[in-house]
Amino acid sequence: MRNIKLLVEYDGTNYAGWQRQKNVMTIQEKIETAIEKITGEKTQITGSSRTDTGVHAKGYTGNFYTNSKISVEKFTGAINSKLPLDIVILHCFEVPCEFHSRYNCTGKMYSYTILNRYEAVAVGRNYIYHHKRILDVEAMKEASKYFMGTHDFSAFKNLGSSVKTSVRTITRLDIIKNEDIIKIYIAADGFLYNMVRIIVGALVRVGEGKIKPNEIKDIILSKERAKAGKSVPPGGLCLEEVFY
Amino acid sequence: MRNIKLLVEYDGTNYAGWQRQKNVMTIQEKIETAIEKITGEKTQITGSSRTDTGVHAKGYTGNFYTNSKISVEKFTGAINSKLPLDIVILHCFEVPCEFHSRYNCTGKMYSYTILNRYEAVAVGRNYIYHHKRILDVEAMKEASKYFMGTHDFSAFKNLGSSVKTSVRTITRLDIIKNEDIIKIYIAADGFLYNMVRIIVGALVRVGEGKIKPNEIKDIILSKERAKAGKSVPPGGLCLEEVFY
Repeated sequence: MRNIKLLVEYDGTNYAGWQRQKNVMTIQEKIETAIEKITGEKTQITGSSRTDTGVHAKGYTGNFYTNSKISVEKFTGAINSKLPLDIVILHCFEVPCEFHSRYNCTGKMYSYTILNRYEAVAVGRNYIYHHKRILDVEAMKEASKYFMGTHDFSAFKNLGSSVKTSVRTITRLDIIKNEDIIKIYIAADGFLYNMVRIIVGALVRVGEGKIKPNEIKDIILSKERAKAGKSVPPGGLCLEEVFY
Repeated sequence: MRNIKLLVEYDGTNYAGWQRQKNVMTIQEKIETAIEKITGEKTQITGSSRTDTGVHAKGYTGNFYTNSKISVEKFTGAINSKLPLDIVILHCFEVPCEFHSRYNCTGKMYSYTILNRYEAVAVGRNYIYHHKRILDVEAMKEASKYFMGTHDFSAFKNLGSSVKTSVRTITRLDIIKNEDIIKIYIAADGFLYNMVRIIVGALVRVGEGKIKPNEIKDIILSKERAKAGKSVPPGGLCLEEVFY
């Protein structure tokens, strides 16, 4: 039995997220069906995480077992030939039998893209969150420091997944403004459910002047979800990389 | 009678270009229908140019006449409320009666975006041209110099529009590489039919080493369309700005 690791890019606009569900189309189902067409075997992919409806990925990872003799080089093109244009296998890797794309994951990096201008947007609208009111990026950068490091992020977690602990370590939180695009990169050893979108929502409230940068500290300490405020929409979110 | 100038952004993916045609949906028809819903008047927009199927715009311009008393500030939101998400009116301007968005245009700037990597692409795929083979960007920059200035661009024109002369003046041709994205900005006093896409096609052939940078000079002088080679696909093309 071979264990194949997949590196996947997808446009999540038209899918109900990664994980297979009844009555809605998901990315997992599309790729499993494509692999089954190639290998003739019933296939189940172990994904590195769930992603929500409308969230994108440039570096999603998963793995599956197969008896197929197709070389790892040929697998990529073969699976892609059975996939729609909004899902692409970037690479297939031959990995040891014990490799597990979720358990072996040591961290992840996401990006979140805000278009910060008054006018609405047509080009690229599915990949950005359009925020009309001009944000104070310096205040957002100041606030980002309070997220860095190890904290109990209970205030930045929605219900929906069972996890043993809400303690996570954020290793990177960069906010880069380029003309009217604000790009936020956030890396951690793991993320709670909706954590990135709730953190970005709080940063946006700082940028609007509704809360002060140093209030982030108190919101974290409160462990109360309500204090963190609204999360931002899924389209701006992209899973950039899964670390092993 | 008032004359209203429109500044328009659109995602051309799902349209048969700007200009109204029978049996296919166009951007012009969508906006004219939206305006008619607001003003109750039969409306015809004079566009600054045609754009092809799949080509995008961040700064398209047009103008239309109306007897409506709606303020120019309220027009933008009113028209947008009747438009699909892939077409956005960025601004409406009150202009003198004699203003004509095509005749008064003094130039245009387009961008063309190439994703230059081996792997296929899902995120943003409608806005880029994916080119697998790594291009020599320095050679492309060298070649771009030969396009600058005033030339007869007959070799870089497809049949399909009647123009008095094929002489145009290119005032800007910048090629900027950022990681695996190559962005080309090209401005001129006017463009012939498919001119940008044929020029970029020739630059790609230079980047592949199939023609030398200085051969561009001979291709221009030849005035033969066949010598310029294949044009690149429409998705990478975006009308950035129309000058007046």
